[in-house]
Amino acid sequence: MDFSSIFVSEALGTGILILLGAGVVANVLLAKSKGFEGGWLLITFGWGLGVFAGVYVAYKTGGALNPAVTIGTLFSGADEYAPGIEVNFTNTVAYILGQLVGAFLGACAAYLAYKRHFDAETDEEKKLGVFATVPAIRSYRWNFLTEVIATFVLVFVIIAFGRTPSGLGPLAAALLVVAIGASLGGPTGYAINPARDLGPRIAYALLPTHHSAAVAAKNVSTNLTVGVGGHRELPDKPAETHRKNPDWAYAWVPVLGPLLGGALAGLAAQAFL
Amino acid sequence: MDFSSIFVSEALGTGILILLGAGVVANVLLAKSKGFEGGWLLITFGWGLGVFAGVYVAYKTGGALNPAVTIGTLFSGADEYAPGIEVNFTNTVAYILGQLVGAFLGACAAYLAYKRHFDAETDEEKKLGVFATVPAIRSYRWNFLTEVIATFVLVFVIIAFGRTPSGLGPLAAALLVVAIGASLGGPTGYAINPARDLGPRIAYALLPTHHSAAVAAKNVSTNLTVGVGGHRELPDKPAETHRKNPDWAYAWVPVLGPLLGGALAGLAAQAFL
Amino acid sequence: MDFSSIFVSEALGTGILILLGAGVVANVLLAKSKGFEGGWLLITFGWGLGVFAGVYVAYKTGGALNPAVTIGTLFSGADEYAPGIEVNFTNTVAYILGQLVGAFLGACAAYLAYKRHFDAETDEEKKLGVFATVPAIRSYRWNFLTEVIATFVLVFVIIAFGRTPSGLGPLAAALLVVAIGASLGGPTGYAINPARDLGPRIAYALLPTHHSAAVAAKNVSTNLTVGVGGHRELPDKPAETHRKNPDWAYAWVPVLGPLLGGALAGLAAQAFL
Amino acid sequence: MDFSSIFVSEALGTGILILLGAGVVANVLLAKSKGFEGGWLLITFGWGLGVFAGVYVAYKTGGALNPAVTIGTLFSGADEYAPGIEVNFTNTVAYILGQLVGAFLGACAAYLAYKRHFDAETDEEKKLGVFATVPAIRSYRWNFLTEVIATFVLVFVIIAFGRTPSGLGPLAAALLVVAIGASLGGPTGYAINPARDLGPRIAYALLPTHHSAAVAAKNVSTNLTVGVGGHRELPDKPAETHRKNPDWAYAWVPVLGPLLGGALAGLAAQAFL
Repeated sequence: MDFSSIFVSEALGTGILILLGAGVVANVLLAKSKGFEGGWLLITFGWGLGVFAGVYVAYKTGGALNPAVTIGTLFSGADEYAPGIEVNFTNTVAYILGQLVGAFLGACAAYLAYKRHFDAETDEEKKLGVFATVPAIRSYRWNFLTEVIATFVLVFVIIAFGRTPSGLGPLAAALLVVAIGASLGGPTGYAINPARDLGPRIAYALLPTHHSAAVAAKNVSTNLTVGVGGHRELPDKPAETHRKNPDWAYAWVPVLGPLLGGALAGLAAQAFL
Repeated sequence: MDFSSIFVSEALGTGILILLGAGVVANVLLAKSKGFEGGWLLITFGWGLGVFAGVYVAYKTGGALNPAVTIGTLFSGADEYAPGIEVNFTNTVAYILGQLVGAFLGACAAYLAYKRHFDAETDEEKKLGVFATVPAIRSYRWNFLTEVIATFVLVFVIIAFGRTPSGLGPLAAALLVVAIGASLGGPTGYAINPARDLGPRIAYALLPTHHSAAVAAKNVSTNLTVGVGGHRELPDKPAETHRKNPDWAYAWVPVLGPLLGGALAGLAAQAFL
Repeated sequence: MDFSSIFVSEALGTGILILLGAGVVANVLLAKSKGFEGGWLLITFGWGLGVFAGVYVAYKTGGALNPAVTIGTLFSGADEYAPGIEVNFTNTVAYILGQLVGAFLGACAAYLAYKRHFDAETDEEKKLGVFATVPAIRSYRWNFLTEVIATFVLVFVIIAFGRTPSGLGPLAAALLVVAIGASLGGPTGYAINPARDLGPRIAYALLPTHHSAAVAAKNVSTNLTVGVGGHRELPDKPAETHRKNPDWAYAWVPVLGPLLGGALAGLAAQAFL
Repeated sequence: MDFSSIFVSEALGTGILILLGAGVVANVLLAKSKGFEGGWLLITFGWGLGVFAGVYVAYKTGGALNPAVTIGTLFSGADEYAPGIEVNFTNTVAYILGQLVGAFLGACAAYLAYKRHFDAETDEEKKLGVFATVPAIRSYRWNFLTEVIATFVLVFVIIAFGRTPSGLGPLAAALLVVAIGASLGGPTGYAINPARDLGPRIAYALLPTHHSAAVAAKNVSTNLTVGVGGHRELPDKPAETHRKNPDWAYAWVPVLGPLLGGALAGLAAQAFL
């Protein structure tokens, strides 16, 4: 399989993953969305089933969708990333580049799907939260460790899946991601995937999210004559706009933590599984 | 397989889908229902498992249950809709007609199952919400785009399912619909299926939903002597009846959006999967 | 397979089903339970996965666990209830008797598992609700119709499962029961099974649930010196005890409704599937 | 398979189980966690999917992960714990020792993943609740009975799984544990596994959880200059520290109850399945 086929397959699968993953966070966080405050279990199912859909789409390349999985496979001593795709430098680059670009594009698609809810939302931190992870208690050291542990579980168990094939296919990975979200997502929001965090964070930095409150006020007023529908209150004061901040200071944690966790899991799998 | 067999199979399957799908919304929205305010995850499971049940019932025709899936299959360049059912004009009509009629009948059955809760509910917008989708923030342009994106994911991933068969059968489609509801359902309530929205909307327009409040008040008073049971408060003022409005102005969005999304997914699948 | 083997198999499976089903309702309804007010989705998963466990246990007899399923199979024109078990009068009696006795015993086991929570609960209607279904809005006619519709879906789709085997096994029936609970359980609490309602209702009538409040007050006071633990407040007034009422007036609805729904589903399956 | 291979396999699998199981409780109970007050269903999914992941990891030894399952297998009259692993004294010890050590280590890993949330939490009973089970209403007799009943269901149904293989693999055990948590977890928090309770209780006794509040206050103050992030309030009074108490008085209940329940299930399976 050539470079561009690997790139496209992983970009498509990761794009679907991030569209669904960023989507569920938007649904739960953003103003006036139908899933507003839908709870943590909803978020874990959204991300888990995003993996489910993405892995099917990237079936040609085994649906890694995550540089930590790719690196973990490399460190596990495997010969191939997927049937017919050798573990070598070029292919590794094709995987990771596809994952990053796909994650960026998926985040842009989620932005478009929730455009009017971004417009209606005035809390800029929530908007960042749709794209990138934000720790519950900021502590670079401990947040990093949490990402290492959570990603270790992800990659170690995924390698174990390969040892005892069942009829579940991509559902196994999906349920594992639900599990990690439910159990280890509390402190950092479980990036467990450098592409999942970095690609959307770049998208957040580039997309015009912080001009939107003013636009929203204008659009809402032009739609007031519509009959049946959702909430249509005019904002009673000029929308409060927080300062846009992609939080680059934190961005290394959800990149390096998962990479280290994935590499350790690969080594551990070689030793124990 | 002849026209009427295709029609009956898709009508039965879509009928079960809409009975369960409209049912879960009634359970969450309507007054005094046991699942009242049961949350968005409950709604996504109700619809997802409605697909699960419906696809099994329509097993002879592959359980499309959705004109957007049928059109997507057509645009993907497939030869058959299901084993032994050629892609041609007559069969396409049989599929879509069956889906529409089934959706209409399923909505009527859900109305009967929740009859007394429709009687007890005075908010006419909630009643419409059981049958048809209502956008959270009305914006024909952006609502349309959200439906295009969500349906693209649905049809594109369903076609991907066919590339890597697992032992999940109809569960894969069910989980995908849970995913789309969780992640992309926030802005429009995810029609992602022209029959799902149009058939029940017609049912809402025809069923006597807005006479029911008065009837309810009468029925409740005749049951007050009953011993054990649910809530039995007499309404302390004449029930407030909102104006009935099937919101035809919006009805094209959940029809044309999904059709376009499905067609684009078929083309994309032909190119990339 | 002889009468007593069928009886024991169905009694064991239905016992597990009702132990888990009544258990989840106790967890959500009864005072001080850890799942208190855990929501409708929790209830639907408890019952659905109760079916999952019960069907595995009753694997020798196909795990009907429900007279409506047994009657539906009979009306569908099938030759066998399970491999090696002919459809005839004796076997039908063995199935239904086993289901009723198992349901009764399962409810007793659930009572024992939640004994102290029954003691601590003063609302007798909630205690009944753990055992038997109570309609949200009492209306014999409409409650009956809701049970007919919901059981029709159950039995019709279960018969459809047999037409397209997947690798899901009993999980398919479990998910179907989750679906029906989520979507059609709002008005009546979805008995959809005469044994599920009648067996536990008899258990409720016989068990000493209404003496327990006084006992609880005594027991609680003897445990106040214990260190770490749950809630230990002394009731500040004599426990209010409602009149115990097994609501026999309603008991025919969740028996005859499901039987009619199952029979109709059997006939419909013969005609359409 | 030799002693140390069995030990390592069960320790790894039980470690993953407890890391995810203790993790989900930490996520729901501890201050400022993203899954705070996420509900009982979230907890049941966390534990159930912890079993899912752990069983895959311990695939070489069949993934018992639980002395009650091991003892139940022994009492069921089986010849082997897993293909190639005879039921004998040495292997039984290897299983149970591995499970205990794995549970201890998994609890330590969960502590590290949630370190800052343990620091921020001042309620010592909640911290204990992350590690060990605490009954909702303390009553050694009835709590013991609840653990016997719940573990009986676990082990009896797991043995039934072996009679009718499906394509679900470890998912069947995972869903069973979700079921037991949803339905029988209300009174005691469902240990249903001596290792799950004892190993983490020992970890709680040894880990420096009760010094942490002061540490937290210090750490928080050194991070106040950080920009975007979670909650950063300074505690407005010295953190209240409850007395640390591993509740050894209760510790025999979740050890002996599950062992008895498992043994009874083994005997019952021998008689009835």
